[in-house]
Formats: sequence, structure tokens, C-alpha cells
Amino acid sequence: MKFQSPKGTRDFYPAEMAVRRRIEAAWRDASVAFGFDEIDGPTFEHLELYTAKSGEGIVNELFSFRRAGGSDDYALRPEFTPTLARMAAARAAQLPVPIKWFAVPNFFRAERPQRGRLREFYQWNVDLLGAEGPAIDAEVIGVAVAALARLGLKHTDVRVKISHRVAAAKLVRALGVAEESVAGAFELLDRRDKMPPEEFTTRAAALGLAGDALARFESALRTRVQVGEDLGVLASAAGIAADELGELAALRDALVAADLAPWCEFDLGIVRGLAYYTGTVFEIHEASGGERAIAGGGRYDGLVELFGGPKTPAMGFGMGDVVLGLVLADRGLLPKDGNELLPRPDAFVVSAGEPAADAELPRLVARLRADGFHVRHSYKATRNVGKLLADASKQRARFAVILGAELAEGRAMLKDLASGEQRPVALAELANLLRAPAQA
Amino acid sequence: MKFQSPKGTRDFYPAEMAVRRRIEAAWRDASVAFGFDEIDGPTFEHLELYTAKSGEGIVNELFSFRRAGGSDDYALRPEFTPTLARMAAARAAQLPVPIKWFAVPNFFRAERPQRGRLREFYQWNVDLLGAEGPAIDAEVIGVAVAALARLGLKHTDVRVKISHRVAAAKLVRALGVAEESVAGAFELLDRRDKMPPEEFTTRAAALGLAGDALARFESALRTRVQVGEDLGVLASAAGIAADELGELAALRDALVAADLAPWCEFDLGIVRGLAYYTGTVFEIHEASGGERAIAGGGRYDGLVELFGGPKTPAMGFGMGDVVLGLVLADRGLLPKDGNELLPRPDAFVVSAGEPAADAELPRLVARLRADGFHVRHSYKATRNVGKLLADASKQRARFAVILGAELAEGRAMLKDLASGEQRPVALAELANLLRAPAQA
Repeated sequence: MKFQSPKGTRDFYPAEMAVRRRIEAAWRDASVAFGFDEIDGPTFEHLELYTAKSGEGIVNELFSFRRAGGSDDYALRPEFTPTLARMAAARAAQLPVPIKWFAVPNFFRAERPQRGRLREFYQWNVDLLGAEGPAIDAEVIGVAVAALARLGLKHTDVRVKISHRVAAAKLVRALGVAEESVAGAFELLDRRDKMPPEEFTTRAAALGLAGDALARFESALRTRVQVGEDLGVLASAAGIAADELGELAALRDALVAADLAPWCEFDLGIVRGLAYYTGTVFEIHEASGGERAIAGGGRYDGLVELFGGPKTPAMGFGMGDVVLGLVLADRGLLPKDGNELLPRPDAFVVSAGEPAADAELPRLVARLRADGFHVRHSYKATRNVGKLLADASKQRARFAVILGAELAEGRAMLKDLASGEQRPVALAELANLLRAPAQA
Repeated sequence: MKFQSPKGTRDFYPAEMAVRRRIEAAWRDASVAFGFDEIDGPTFEHLELYTAKSGEGIVNELFSFRRAGGSDDYALRPEFTPTLARMAAARAAQLPVPIKWFAVPNFFRAERPQRGRLREFYQWNVDLLGAEGPAIDAEVIGVAVAALARLGLKHTDVRVKISHRVAAAKLVRALGVAEESVAGAFELLDRRDKMPPEEFTTRAAALGLAGDALARFESALRTRVQVGEDLGVLASAAGIAADELGELAALRDALVAADLAPWCEFDLGIVRGLAYYTGTVFEIHEASGGERAIAGGGRYDGLVELFGGPKTPAMGFGMGDVVLGLVLADRGLLPKDGNELLPRPDAFVVSAGEPAADAELPRLVARLRADGFHVRHSYKATRNVGKLLADASKQRARFAVILGAELAEGRAMLKDLASGEQRPVALAELANLLRAPAQA
């Protein structure tokens, strides 16, 4: 009988698991450095938690189910924000203000698997609730950047592309789009790569964007301004006054103050599909633009209220493991063999074959492990110490401990597997010697 | 609109998440010390992966589903062994021998939630495949004990109850049970607490256990022998020769050699419901016996073959987070407030209110975080330094960094929040000072 993992899911053998854990460690370390606390929720939720916000349309992208004999509809979580909003709403009165939470859960989407998109994936979620203003937005963008930096990415490797719903709305209104058509303009913007140019032109005209206005709209969308540089370029591309971009200017100052300017650029083409964003929105892309977004998020001040809590300003993002893993591998920031990321054994214990050594081995191994050391030993029947030492090196142990004739004097041979040096040491001294830092 | 988490699942707010992470850290650290590598599989599998081994009867305990428009049946994983066996079978030719794997996934059971049993829980799985013998069995039991010891449990707090399918089979045959009824005797043993005594007696008689044989059977089941003590007590309770218990004697020697004897006792009443165990079986219980098993496992030499791989000896166990969490809390081994387990901030940065300090704060916070420090700051509008320092203490920061008049000379006040001492330090020196170990 042969079984396979479900389509779009992954088996994590040790090498793949080590890569996943490395990414998660960077996420977690950056979160803690920025003062976020970890949370998690159930892997499945009531189906209505997702349909309430996104409507019934989302149901086809969900894995939904019932318990046999039960009457409640459930769905595997496709994203974290509804769980987060539910949890924040449930304890709104007791929780500290602001709430700073992160999570590293897995998510599920019943889509066709493709490059950068799987049916089960891991995603880092960071949210700051109960505070607002450009400094908060910059802090949330900063934690995303900090994780990428910890993974070895530089500001030249990725682009944090930032827009602002309010500034973008001012722009489209200044170009002649009526107030009630602003949402339609965002939707058009978000879907412009999915339609032929003629359809785009027709739809833009219906919103009031034609001729010179459309040209300025497209020019503004094509103009990217490095954060810290003059926003006037963007204003003149759009044909509007620079002070119409006040939200971007305030955000720029906060990003500069937090040392983030080299990573970030303003790009009004960033819309984010989700309808709930209310201010800053951003996506992080690999610099060449060849992959899907590494991360995306923004300000969503209305969401906690939608899930039964008080009105709460909120800013957050999600960063998945799949695209990020592709980018890291492409930049040579992951070892070719993920096994190199596995923890190295402190010691590999070998018996030279005497009965006393065979008897001592399990005892010594147990004691060193109880002291917290990572200790391995051979499972081979061979008595050939050379073969056993080769096994120790293959498993990347720092030291081999050879139990032989010296055992009669309470000693063992300690061999440094990097330098090849070996010397007899007292068994009672072993733990101290293993604790010494590795030599360069 | 009010939403709740699904019945039998948990919301992990920071305090609960910190407890979960503490338990997982003990599992992981013990696994690594013993030389096991981490793996994981998909959260859901093809339904047949579970029904193949356990039959259709298991379907009612599974959360199963289809993708809308799809034709494959899936189920949320109720346990790890089928995934593990599938993964081992798929790469049997390339994987090292022995395979030493651990995992800390979540599992799902569509049962009625009750004390110690939820619909979603986390479970540590440890498996050693491709090697056999009592030393291997002792190593696997040893890693379970090591994790409990890391969590603060002592050998007087828990009992590792061990039996052996071969020894137990010899016993029941010696009492007159026919070869073909041995499996029936195990099943009866496993279910004896779920039936009235008369039913037990009737069924035992049908298997050939009546009168003196039944008395000796029950006497053997009641007899518990601390590992390291004389097995003769158990043999004479059963009315059999001590050398019929050879498997237990070999296991005893291996457990003694690995320093595990104080934790372990032989208890032939341990059967484990699953049909696939072939040798050593064990459960870990809280010493008073008042909770469900903390862990359970054993040797299952036929399983990898069943999933399409070569014949592979295997030994493993699972340890869930729910019962373990109850036992730890009951023994006072978890803080009353899980927030105490959260990482402590290295520094809490405060502006005394001057414009220069307000401007420096985000820059300093960003730089210290980039250096890897856990840095927090206030989000309050207040300029009252006393209130801000109270905030720093409440968040358990080691140091407060106060940006005030000294900033003109490139210095800040560094306040040790434990001792209350404070002194002006150069901003350029801050990172070195924060790196110094905390004083006792």
C-alpha cells in the first residue's frame, strides 16, 4: 500500500524542518525584540467567522467540514485576522493597551497549488491594536524588516512598497473621480494586471478617469519614490499639490526616524485586495519583482468592532514561509542542504569494545544528556573505532568520547573532531570540558 | 456580532501561549539532547491513511472533509504514527539507519471534550526506527523522562508503567489461555475498567481463565515491581517461573544502565489499546493515578511495512500537552500567571519630554532592536517620568533608559529597575551595558 501527502501540502523531513524552524526563529526573535507577545488560536474556526467578514464568496477557497453527527460548520483557518479580532474583542476590557501580538500559525487555502502558493503554509502575523499614527505604522513595518535582516536579506534585496488609502483617495479625487467612485477606483487598481488594457481604459473612463486625468493617474502609479526623497516628484506626476500627500509625508518622517528609509519606497500602485484597510498599506517584494509578495499588511481600524469589540485602531501584516523560502534560497541565504542547520551534537560516545566500556556507555550517555548536552552514539555492531569516529564526524559532533583501556582509571579519550587532537580526561571532568566554547 | 472558539479548542492568549511554549521547549530540548531530529507532516492527510490501519470504525472520531469541487476525502490528523510511517516508507532507501525523529504537531479528535481530552491538542511524538533491543527501548523511555525532569517533575511525581507484549503473552499462556485467545485476553485486559466485574469473570472464563488461573492472573496484574527490584515477586504472584519473564529482565538491565530505574515500574496491566504494539509498551501516569496517562507508547515493529515500506523495527511514544499541563499546574510547576514566563524586556526607553528626546527615542529604540535587544517603550501621552517608569517595571524590564537633558552630551540615564540605581551613560555604550549579565 502506497500513500502520498495531500496535494499542496508538505512533508517536512529534518532538512526541510530545519529551514522552517530557521525562518520561524527569525520571525520570533524580531517579534520579541520589538516587544510583541505570542498568541495562537484554534486551527479551525466556526465557518461564520470567515463568511461574516468576506461574504459567502470565500467559501470555495476554504476547507470546510462538520463533525459526524454534529451541526456546526467549521473551516480550517485561511488567515489569522478574524481569529485575532475575535480574541481581542472577547477580552477587550481586560487586555493591556496597546495590544502587541504576534503568531506563527499554519493556514489553509483550497486553491490550485502553484509557485509560492500552497494549500497549507506557515505565516507570521504581527498586529498592534489600540494605538495609531505614523510612528506605530513605522514600528509595525520595522518588525517585518527586522526579521528579513536577521535572515540575511539586505535593503537592496527587497522593497517595502508603501501606500496610504487616504493619500491615494485624495489623489483620485483630485483627478476628478467622484467620492462615491473612490472605492471602485481602488478595486480597478487592484485588478489592473488581470484585465486587457482596453478594459482598464473603459472602466477607468466610467469612473471619471479619461484623457489627461487617466494619463496623470497612470503616471502617478508608475512613479516610485524612495522614502526620504522628495515627495514632490510623485505630486507632480499626479498633477496635484504636494500637500495633498500629507499622510505620506508624516509616514516618511516616522520611517526615517526608525532607520527604515533605505528599505522603503512609496508606490501608490499598492492597494491590497482586502476591503478592510483604512490607512497605510504595504507589501514587501523581492527587489526584481519576480515573485509574489513576501509580506503584506496595513492599517485596519474597523475590524475589531466588526467582530464584536470596541472601536480599535489596528495595524498588522502577514508574512508567509513559502515565497520567503524561495527568495532566501535564490539569494543563497539558506544552505543547499538544510541538514547543516540541524543542531550539532556536543559529543559522540564510542566504546572501544571492552565489556567495561560497553557497560559504561549507556550510563555516560544518560548522564551527559541529563546535564543538557546533545549526545549521540553509534547503533552499529562494529567494534572498529575508526569507523565509529567516521560516524561521529558525519553526524557533525564537536567531540568524540572514546571509552577504552583508560576507563580502569576513570578516564576516557576526548577527541576534538575539528582539530583531530585527543587526550585522556577524567570522566568527572567531561561535562566541564564539553561546556567550554568551541575554538575558532 | 459575537463569535466563540469551537468547542474543545483553545485560544492561546500570551499567558497560555507561554505555558505551551515552555512545555514544547522541554520536549524539544530533551529530543535534541537524545539526538532526535525534528520533522512534521501535513495537518490533514488522505482519509485512507487512517482507515487503512484502524478500519472504518475510526471515521466517527475524525474530522473529515472534501475540498469544494474535489473528490478526495481528507481528515485532520488524529495522531502522528500514520504520517511518520508514510514518510519513513516513502524514503526508506535514502534515510539513515536508525531513523531518530521527533515532532510536536497538533492533533484533532471529534470526541466529546472532557478533562484532559480536547478536540485540538498538541502532542510530542518520538520515534526510533530501524533498531531494536532493550537498550533502544530504554533510550526512547529515557527521552520521555528527560522532558518531564526538565519541567521539574521528580521520579516521585510520576510513574513510568512498563509491560512487554511477549512477556505478558507468556504469562497468559502459562495460565492456560490458548495461543489463539492471547489477543482476546489483551483486549479483555484493556477494557476491564469499562465492564462490571461479573462480565469480566464471564469473559475471562471463556478465554480459559477461571478459578485459580484467574486468581493468579488478577494477582499478577495487581503486582507492581519497581524496576531494579526482584522480578521473582511478579513471577510468583502469577505462579510462573521467573525465567518466563526474560524480556522484562533484559529491559530492567537496560533501564538500570540508563539511570532510569527510579522512574519505572513493571505493570502487566498496561496493555495500550492500539493493536499494533509488538514488544515493550509503556504509559506514564501522575503518581496518584488521578489523571489520564501523560504519555504512552511502545514497540511497533510491523507498522512501516503496513504503509508500504520495508520491515522496520520501531519504538515510539506520544505525550500530549493537556494532561501534562494539568499535572504541572497541580504540582506548582507552572507560575500561577503564565505572563511570568514571557521574555523580559532588556530595556524600556522613556523620553523625559524635551523635543530632542522625543526625536531620539524612535532612533535609539530601532538601533537597540537591530542589535538584538528586546526593547519596549511607552505608548502613553503622559510626560510624567515616574508614571513611565512604573510602566517599565510593570512590563518587567531590566533597565529603563531615560532620555533627558543629558542627551545634549550624547548621554542617557540608565536605571536598573531591580536595584533602583541609576547613572548617566554614553548612548554609544548602551548596547555593551545591556549585554552585561543581570546581577543576582
